[in-house]
Amino acid sequence: MHCSLGPINPNQKIKWLASSTSDAWLRQVVDHPIELLIDHAHCERKAAGAALQLMFRYLCEPGLAEILSPLAREELDHFEYVLSLIKKRGHYLKPLQAPPYGGLLAKQIRRHEPQRMLDSFLVAGLIEARSHERMSILSIHSPDEELRDLYSRLLASEARHFCSYWMLAEKRYLRQEILSRLNELALVEASILSELHPEPRMHS
Amino acid sequence: MHCSLGPINPNQKIKWLASSTSDAWLRQVVDHPIELLIDHAHCERKAAGAALQLMFRYLCEPGLAEILSPLAREELDHFEYVLSLIKKRGHYLKPLQAPPYGGLLAKQIRRHEPQRMLDSFLVAGLIEARSHERMSILSIHSPDEELRDLYSRLLASEARHFCSYWMLAEKRYLRQEILSRLNELALVEASILSELHPEPRMHS
Repeated sequence: MHCSLGPINPNQKIKWLASSTSDAWLRQVVDHPIELLIDHAHCERKAAGAALQLMFRYLCEPGLAEILSPLAREELDHFEYVLSLIKKRGHYLKPLQAPPYGGLLAKQIRRHEPQRMLDSFLVAGLIEARSHERMSILSIHSPDEELRDLYSRLLASEARHFCSYWMLAEKRYLRQEILSRLNELALVEASILSELHPEPRMHS
Repeated sequence: MHCSLGPINPNQKIKWLASSTSDAWLRQVVDHPIELLIDHAHCERKAAGAALQLMFRYLCEPGLAEILSPLAREELDHFEYVLSLIKKRGHYLKPLQAPPYGGLLAKQIRRHEPQRMLDSFLVAGLIEARSHERMSILSIHSPDEELRDLYSRLLASEARHFCSYWMLAEKRYLRQEILSRLNELALVEASILSELHPEPRMHS
């Protein structure tokens, strides 16, 4: 099965996601470009950390480290790039209150194997899919040319990362089981985002 | 101050280390090339994890992420390369009992700041320095040409990583304080390795 995320036209729903991002989110974040960049840097380093955590947990599972280690490297590369833009604008990383998004999704991961591994792949993949959707919106609608360039540059990777997690799942689980669980998790993901978090974040 | 590790001739003591690796270690590991490779892969991924852990702990400290994120990426790149050699030889990663080395060194890290950060840099640097010394020995004395090539290829990075940790310390602490603590930690490091761990490991 082709794992593409579907259309990147932000007016259309991204395949796999159960909802489209609202205009309210776009209005919220374009007014806070530095805060969004800092949050984005945190997202990239957290994504690297999460990929490594998965790799360490299932280290002896053949074919897993080969996907997750390059993925973590790429997230770190993006982290460094976003950090360089933050510095160019006279700022630096600062602690930001994370929105409830990641924590609530992590709670959906079932505790026992083999469900735990499947859910871990799908939650990570859904976060990549949402990042892809939001970056594609910013790559078109951000009023800031440098940020439009940044998001255009990064969004293809987010789509590739979704595909990586999809392929990790597809090699180990039945397609029907994957699709059924992905649909359940996508509904939860959409429900978490259905109310705009008050602070401007990549996943507010 | 130049942070070079000094001579890589394995018959000479590497600057900063308080002891030279014994011939007994070399005899132990050359008889177990696959086990050494697997342990080496674990060392690279643990070094990446440790760099990220430090980066996450001190994320808002300017100049730290800029060093530690590329360092972690390079460790992961080496991890992938060593993994490819393990697979080429018909094996895969497997859990290996870690030698006491890393755990005992971590116990030397003082718990309160600013000592904690200094000790974290110096312990990480000493591990890189010892890896550099042992890889330089293997790059000359391993009976296996492919492994001699591997270690020749990687040892310059280990030296660079020592320098990275040295520079992180030097920007934040007085040189006398760094040297005095580095000497203390180097003595502990040498004492941990003074008795050969019974299982062949990069740090047995």
